[in-house]
Amino acid sequence: MKIAIIGAGGVATSMVHALRDKCEITQIFSRELAKARRLATVAGAEPIDRLELLRPDAEVVIIAVKDDAIASVIDRCRDGGALCLHTSGSTPIDVFAGRRRRYGVLYPMQSFSPGLIVDMSETHFFVEASDTDALRMTEHVARLMSAHVTQCDSRRRESLHIAAVFACNFANHMWTLADEVMTDSHLPFEALLPLIRSTVAKLDTLAPRQSQTGPAARHDLTIVDRHLSRLDGHKHDIYNLLSQSIMNNG
Amino acid sequence: MKIAIIGAGGVATSMVHALRDKCEITQIFSRELAKARRLATVAGAEPIDRLELLRPDAEVVIIAVKDDAIASVIDRCRDGGALCLHTSGSTPIDVFAGRRRRYGVLYPMQSFSPGLIVDMSETHFFVEASDTDALRMTEHVARLMSAHVTQCDSRRRESLHIAAVFACNFANHMWTLADEVMTDSHLPFEALLPLIRSTVAKLDTLAPRQSQTGPAARHDLTIVDRHLSRLDGHKHDIYNLLSQSIMNNG
Repeated sequence: MKIAIIGAGGVATSMVHALRDKCEITQIFSRELAKARRLATVAGAEPIDRLELLRPDAEVVIIAVKDDAIASVIDRCRDGGALCLHTSGSTPIDVFAGRRRRYGVLYPMQSFSPGLIVDMSETHFFVEASDTDALRMTEHVARLMSAHVTQCDSRRRESLHIAAVFACNFANHMWTLADEVMTDSHLPFEALLPLIRSTVAKLDTLAPRQSQTGPAARHDLTIVDRHLSRLDGHKHDIYNLLSQSIMNNG
Repeated sequence: MKIAIIGAGGVATSMVHALRDKCEITQIFSRELAKARRLATVAGAEPIDRLELLRPDAEVVIIAVKDDAIASVIDRCRDGGALCLHTSGSTPIDVFAGRRRRYGVLYPMQSFSPGLIVDMSETHFFVEASDTDALRMTEHVARLMSAHVTQCDSRRRESLHIAAVFACNFANHMWTLADEVMTDSHLPFEALLPLIRSTVAKLDTLAPRQSQTGPAARHDLTIVDRHLSRLDGHKHDIYNLLSQSIMNNG
């Protein structure tokens, strides 16, 4: 199978590493040729920096770009009949309607950072497509990377993405705020890592609601108020709102 | 060394498991005798359900009870000259002042749940004491359980606890909210676990601020607003406040 990749960011990089031994990656596009070149080297692909250079030989074109660039990328790629997939959690499949004949969504539910290669075999893929044949092919591409492939329409995929924002982006922001509190008191953030790891490990055996601990979970208002008196700005408001939410949830 | 343990909750349980081969645990107190008995069996200790039964032979008494019970427990234990330690992140050392001669704090920075045994050797202990000799002995008790022992006064220990609330309790609450979003859409929470694990794994190589991803980090207001339109109640307010905080932090 021949696949062209549009994009050279976190998602594209991890996909190229996951796919390079499973199929032929024909071309990799980035607006910055140097980026396209770096990633193309990994897969023996041709780097390009203009979408007009996309050859019609790929059977699948994977668009792994920022959400707000997907529509314009679709418009600027010639429709050579290839199956055209985007990888976004939040862009509905309708973005292709009227622009393409065969299309689908190949959403890897993961958190990607530029330069970090994610193990796609551990990643759950959620797929959707324009028709039965396109769905079969989209699932095939997903299974080249992972055994965890689930069909999921656009509305449920948006719920997934919202859940992922809470589970990953917002949890990470909690660690940023913890880092700030530690740094303000000249304490090393690393001292928190065992705590963070054991909190995550509990998810293997308990639902998060059941393993909730801390002053708010104990309804210990003395401690909650004492902590609030030490905080200001966003940290104060966030501590307050989350404590209330935990107390209502208990 | 002979140690008596007051309490049979998460902290006491993990400490008993960590200490039983390193010292002699003389007695374990719980208001519920059955709980005291269960934990005492682990360590060959005597279970008691009345503080008056505490024998004067222990050199160290560890008070591992809820914050708001510490003062009354101290008052109800006879002062037989033992070093008296509490294990709270948020109760200042002053709680002992005027009540005891030799005292200290032995704070294991971890998240404890009843019934789950935490590996104390991976836990950072923060210690403080009434005098040099008491500090030496408090550090000794901590080092029986872990190589990570740091001296830390009450104000910095409170900062530590606040940081731990963000890093652990609030991160866990994010997973509870993600679980609710998934369940509402008939999706399995387990699909989020690879994402959560890879987010945590990034902390080994990057500061959390540097690895922040997601719609707010990209200042993608279209997605933020679309997600907000799907949420209500606390989840809406939390999504909104945290997105603002991430955007201000970037």
